[in-house]
Amino acid sequence: MIILGIDPGIAIVGWGVIEFSGNKMKPLAYGAITTPAHTPITQRLKTIYDELSLIIDKYKPEAMAVEELFFNTNVKTAITVAHARGIVLLCASQKGVSDFEYTPLQVKQALTGYGRADKMQIQSMVKIMLGLNAVPKPDDTADALAIAICHAHSHNLSSKGYI
Amino acid sequence: MIILGIDPGIAIVGWGVIEFSGNKMKPLAYGAITTPAHTPITQRLKTIYDELSLIIDKYKPEAMAVEELFFNTNVKTAITVAHARGIVLLCASQKGVSDFEYTPLQVKQALTGYGRADKMQIQSMVKIMLGLNAVPKPDDTADALAIAICHAHSHNLSSKGYI
Repeated sequence: MIILGIDPGIAIVGWGVIEFSGNKMKPLAYGAITTPAHTPITQRLKTIYDELSLIIDKYKPEAMAVEELFFNTNVKTAITVAHARGIVLLCASQKGVSDFEYTPLQVKQALTGYGRADKMQIQSMVKIMLGLNAVPKPDDTADALAIAICHAHSHNLSSKGYI
Repeated sequence: MIILGIDPGIAIVGWGVIEFSGNKMKPLAYGAITTPAHTPITQRLKTIYDELSLIIDKYKPEAMAVEELFFNTNVKTAITVAHARGIVLLCASQKGVSDFEYTPLQVKQALTGYGRADKMQIQSMVKIMLGLNAVPKPDDTADALAIAICHAHSHNLSSKGYI
């Protein structure tokens, strides 16, 4: 199955597409949608919508895994990110892609087995698990791939009846 | 000029279209986009997108006035509303409608001249200023019309060089 992982944001939307079959994971493509600062939020949301729609059309994922928003972060930041996250979920709905949400804790547990892993440990695991030569940049892209791997992991356990 | 006022939400998006010329305001249409509870958020966002797109196509507003989000409200609620608000701003951008944002304080001041007016006073002013027989229901629709009136008021003052 093809999984699109998304780390939503208004300045940077990290994305990563992986193919998962049996126990094997393969990266297909990854990157970041960026929107310039000092641009009206309406224009930034439109850029995210347009570019994400193209990515979905190109890779035709069966599932989209999106990070849940922290509720304990700065409220103003959370509200801005939520605007962008709404666009991401709209794209999933319009393109008929099933969406799944994971907390940062779930992502950490899926990749390292425990919930207190730091950012660098997660990024190293992304590199190792996908057989990459380097950690993808920016961080948002690595995070998006981590979320995609988390979904593959959950889906695998679920299909084997473990969860 | 034709102004579309929007009170964003995930369960109810209030909307109201008014025509404003000279010092006169006329209601053209108003209502609420509602999405059923216990429906996936992706589907709810898609409903908002589809219905709001139709409203914009039908009434062709030159301006969209949207309420700013409170930052001191419940964070979880604010994040959910922000998802819907992102869709509203995307629609403005896609349809080429200029967007304007107003705080609840600005809306109250525009309608009643002071910032501590209560909900019922605002609703009464909406009814009086638009020559309606009754206060529009639900509250979200009355609020959307209030925001549209606020924009008309600001635009009028601005065009006369007062602000």
